[in-house]
Amino acid sequence: MSTFENSLENSSALKYLRPEILAMAGYTPGEQPKIQGLIKLNTNENPYPPSPAVYKLLKEDFDPSLLKLYPDPVASELCKELGESVGLGVENVIAGNGSDDILTMAFRCFCDKDRPVACVYPTYSLYTVLAGLQNAECIQVDLNSDFSLPENLLEKIEKANLFVIPNPNAPTSNLFDSKTLEKICASFKGIVMIDEAYADFSGQTSANLVKKYPNVIVSRTFSKSYSLAGARFGYAMAQAPLIYNMMKMKDSYNVNMMTQKVALASFRDKEYLRKTVSLIIETREKLGAELSSLGFKVEKSSANFLFAAPPDRDGARCANLLRDEKIIVRYFPGRMTGEYVRITIGTPEQTATLIAVCRKIYG
Amino acid sequence: MSTFENSLENSSALKYLRPEILAMAGYTPGEQPKIQGLIKLNTNENPYPPSPAVYKLLKEDFDPSLLKLYPDPVASELCKELGESVGLGVENVIAGNGSDDILTMAFRCFCDKDRPVACVYPTYSLYTVLAGLQNAECIQVDLNSDFSLPENLLEKIEKANLFVIPNPNAPTSNLFDSKTLEKICASFKGIVMIDEAYADFSGQTSANLVKKYPNVIVSRTFSKSYSLAGARFGYAMAQAPLIYNMMKMKDSYNVNMMTQKVALASFRDKEYLRKTVSLIIETREKLGAELSSLGFKVEKSSANFLFAAPPDRDGARCANLLRDEKIIVRYFPGRMTGEYVRITIGTPEQTATLIAVCRKIYG
Repeated sequence: MSTFENSLENSSALKYLRPEILAMAGYTPGEQPKIQGLIKLNTNENPYPPSPAVYKLLKEDFDPSLLKLYPDPVASELCKELGESVGLGVENVIAGNGSDDILTMAFRCFCDKDRPVACVYPTYSLYTVLAGLQNAECIQVDLNSDFSLPENLLEKIEKANLFVIPNPNAPTSNLFDSKTLEKICASFKGIVMIDEAYADFSGQTSANLVKKYPNVIVSRTFSKSYSLAGARFGYAMAQAPLIYNMMKMKDSYNVNMMTQKVALASFRDKEYLRKTVSLIIETREKLGAELSSLGFKVEKSSANFLFAAPPDRDGARCANLLRDEKIIVRYFPGRMTGEYVRITIGTPEQTATLIAVCRKIYG
Repeated sequence: MSTFENSLENSSALKYLRPEILAMAGYTPGEQPKIQGLIKLNTNENPYPPSPAVYKLLKEDFDPSLLKLYPDPVASELCKELGESVGLGVENVIAGNGSDDILTMAFRCFCDKDRPVACVYPTYSLYTVLAGLQNAECIQVDLNSDFSLPENLLEKIEKANLFVIPNPNAPTSNLFDSKTLEKICASFKGIVMIDEAYADFSGQTSANLVKKYPNVIVSRTFSKSYSLAGARFGYAMAQAPLIYNMMKMKDSYNVNMMTQKVALASFRDKEYLRKTVSLIIETREKLGAELSSLGFKVEKSSANFLFAAPPDRDGARCANLLRDEKIIVRYFPGRMTGEYVRITIGTPEQTATLIAVCRKIYG
């Protein structure tokens, strides 16, 4: 009765968990290697620091005594500017503690035991986890071998209530054709959520579809292009009735005060975004060409990472050999992905080192 | 088909929402009045700024370039110190984006259509909302008229899978008897979640119950006693099997990097906490005595607020009259609470103004 049952098995309290949660695999925190001199190209972080406006904000303008007060629950100033930048109103934007928070809200609003999710394969692995937490079926539809959308997609996702798709896709790095995406929005009988985490690197957005289709949600994050993974800010755009209902699911004060201010300062510095995004694209193209010349199969990327299969088509071996040289990339075992590694675009210096190492291994 | 259905009614996409969410009342952001010279005593914020260690951290020590990286997903350094301070390990602590995030995780782990929640009445109103979002029944059991726990509580909550109780309770401000709470933990067939948002003002904690009972979760927040409502940090303590499973529900990077550092710096400044909490308790006792002498019925408070019924026992009128004098307090209409107002403890200066105004109205 009165015991410290602190080992993971046999706790008498586990029977109170929802059984589908108990049955799920445990959470494994992402790798946070602390090796000196490591080149970390495994989590699609931006190699450049955030805008100088973030330094000024934190070091000069922000008054820490304000932290005693609750933050604006709906981040109105920020959401207003985000909406206006694409011709939408504040009522069309919801702020999240990273776009993970936005995705969680959407899955909780639209999915349950009777309301399946659909996504493609391969794609961002979080979607199947979020479906599991809602005890919702997750219908995964294979992409074509060139990672484009299959002809019969609509037919295959017919039973789903929510279709979630990153554009550009991760980990495959490619951009889906906008005409095809719009056709899905127009025809699918359910919510289409377009996860634009990497859209700033593609020069393309589906934000314009929000005005046209009442069933479309477009989500964005500041973690990648704005170099603010540590600050946690993401948002979604949709017509007001969907935003209004997603708000019901939101934790009251989900975006802290510092992040609201940091994100707004970053968003206003459009020149810095343009500059760092250009640098990353330039480095991406250079790395892609070099890897191709070494015999890698490099997928056409519209993101801040490459999806590349080494000459021997052994992704696991490639990731291990790079790790021996203190370069960490991401490897996804399994069907369609096992031949590849996913390489985040680093600085030109990091990229030069990576190229030299790849030459040594595969040259 | 292709339309901007941006008014809240009649969107063709609303049919894709889980019906129980669609049926829920819309989210109303908390009042953020912007009147000059207002005395804001309505949201239990701390009147004192955060520890000077927070200023030093943000203005001197913190390097904003780190924001390009993801934060520690489990806030290990912080959780380790929080656990150690009460004789627990890092495996017994989970970090949250405010304790709202912690409560959301618990409700999602332990409640659904077949797993009811129980709480007392009156209590923190978020609990019934969170139950609704899970489509879970919420069994509310009336407190005695002195706001103590009813004799037959265990019997009445028998059907529930999760029993959540703030201690001290909000908005009633009183502390529940620790022997009675422990009896509930020992006898209740389900999870007991003790929400200690205000515990630093009571000098009492149930953290010791975590070691004794595998079904107990104790949650804490930095929003009140640490003056960090704007930073969003809360945490829960429980035996490892419950923490391990709650982690499955957590957004991967739920606590941003700045907040992890700010919370740790605050937590280490124990002298500042002691000093500001003492000041608030001193002011609380003085205000309580003054209001009593004016004919208010003042509940014995163990929190950073008072629950007080004015001489005419008309809480709504009291809140309105105070508002006319630029003082905002919280009024909860309805059974058992309608006679009262909830008054956050402010600075001695704010309190002197409040007392003068109350004298004018009721003296």
